[in-house]
Amino acid sequence: MGHEPRNPDYEAAARESFARQSAMEALGANLVLVEPGRTVIEFVRNERFLQQHGYMHAGAATTIVDSACGYAALSLMKPDAEVVTVEFKVNFIRPCIGEKFRAEGRVVSSGRQLTVCEGEVTNMETGKTIARMQATMMAIETDGTSPG
Amino acid sequence: MGHEPRNPDYEAAARESFARQSAMEALGANLVLVEPGRTVIEFVRNERFLQQHGYMHAGAATTIVDSACGYAALSLMKPDAEVVTVEFKVNFIRPCIGEKFRAEGRVVSSGRQLTVCEGEVTNMETGKTIARMQATMMAIETDGTSPG
Amino acid sequence: MGHEPRNPDYEAAARESFARQSAMEALGANLVLVEPGRTVIEFVRNERFLQQHGYMHAGAATTIVDSACGYAALSLMKPDAEVVTVEFKVNFIRPCIGEKFRAEGRVVSSGRQLTVCEGEVTNMETGKTIARMQATMMAIETDGTSPG
Amino acid sequence: MGHEPRNPDYEAAARESFARQSAMEALGANLVLVEPGRTVIEFVRNERFLQQHGYMHAGAATTIVDSACGYAALSLMKPDAEVVTVEFKVNFIRPCIGEKFRAEGRVVSSGRQLTVCEGEVTNMETGKTIARMQATMMAIETDGTSPG
Repeated sequence: MGHEPRNPDYEAAARESFARQSAMEALGANLVLVEPGRTVIEFVRNERFLQQHGYMHAGAATTIVDSACGYAALSLMKPDAEVVTVEFKVNFIRPCIGEKFRAEGRVVSSGRQLTVCEGEVTNMETGKTIARMQATMMAIETDGTSPG
Repeated sequence: MGHEPRNPDYEAAARESFARQSAMEALGANLVLVEPGRTVIEFVRNERFLQQHGYMHAGAATTIVDSACGYAALSLMKPDAEVVTVEFKVNFIRPCIGEKFRAEGRVVSSGRQLTVCEGEVTNMETGKTIARMQATMMAIETDGTSPG
Repeated sequence: MGHEPRNPDYEAAARESFARQSAMEALGANLVLVEPGRTVIEFVRNERFLQQHGYMHAGAATTIVDSACGYAALSLMKPDAEVVTVEFKVNFIRPCIGEKFRAEGRVVSSGRQLTVCEGEVTNMETGKTIARMQATMMAIETDGTSPG
Repeated sequence: MGHEPRNPDYEAAARESFARQSAMEALGANLVLVEPGRTVIEFVRNERFLQQHGYMHAGAATTIVDSACGYAALSLMKPDAEVVTVEFKVNFIRPCIGEKFRAEGRVVSSGRQLTVCEGEVTNMETGKTIARMQATMMAIETDGTSPG
């Protein structure tokens, strides 16, 4: 889709940040792809994070696709920026039934301060969509300020 | 707010469903109040579910307040119904910094099939709002159909 | 995208419904394409619907892309169904500056009762995105009930 | 709710901006109350803005409650700021049936750059809720920059 990264080390920045999230480790999530404006995280069914019907909790899928959107946004930010989620909306289309899942986040529009992303979680065996997200991310300078 | 429960055992239904969610146990969440149209879940900081800056992951807060909204919706449904989240939108107002947190879900409007809820997560020590949610829930009959 | 219409007269159903919306006429909107799972509505700058800076009001763009999503959903519904918007979320990416605009709505997932759509409004001269939407639609039987 | 205005002329600022929106005039909307962090806009049924069933178009109600949220946010901003809607999510609870409607917007949390608002549209005769919104607003300095 032709997004130009502003940080030559965008992939390392995403992987380093992802590695610091104990929640991603607890959920068994793996960051498998980082491209300018697009990231993919894979995860598997985890008995520890089920909802009342025995399916993977939708909150786990949501947390992971929010991370995928966040890192997609980060991949287009300046080297000293960090990403924070301002808000997101997520539709749950099918229960999170199955063993292997894929979350993808993509940048829709990247502005100076705000980035709009879309993302989805799919069942890797059936290809069916489990959840769909639209999210707003913001760039935060690592010195605590926002880009002016 | 004057919501009338249609299930005399609404509290037991919520607690029984909550107890079956291994994710709620993993997150250390406690269902502390169930009223017709309102529920409260409390949780504490958990080293296993942090994001990259060492704060509690926003996804944990989101998952818990979605549950609070879901059980608020369920408390006004018929005895044989179960609740499923159709979608939600959540704004992240402050990072999830602190030790003790409170998630509250409240019914805004309860229809025959769809229920609209609002919810928030607050820091129990400061009273400050961490996240705000607006959610749409749907009633599912336990025989697999939706209420006609 | 391979959506199968369940109503052979899906296009006539969309156009007939669109024609009954005085709001679409007031906004100068034209339904230019109806395919199974996708519709396009075009509109032009209208002095009567401006916001405080003299641009086309974002509410006009929102109303039109909501209609585009609604008719995309309707195109996959049964012959006796009507569509109602349950909710939507919209991000405003750029001001609605320019003369000619295009709103497209597409079905993401079409279920028995609920349909999830995505849509956007773009500037027809620059191709730039003005707004992005994710919406939830519901099928209503014309006899007043919902599909059971 | 104890919001402190940062602009002593917050009411005049809201009214002046509202008066410049031809869309508000076209919709017959009246700004009836401006308090720090809360505004109310009233409107009546308008034959020109109907949807296909003859009810007031949900897009009209949405546009007006978005304005109410925007001016609620503006009322807490610095004197030289203007407000822009980043995004909003709206649930449609009942059709916009009736003659007289009231839209209220309230600030949930007002930060340096972003403000989260909630709002609703109600039927003034029945008191019933028609729509519910959660919105994110941003402050823009009138010199074109965002607050640093």
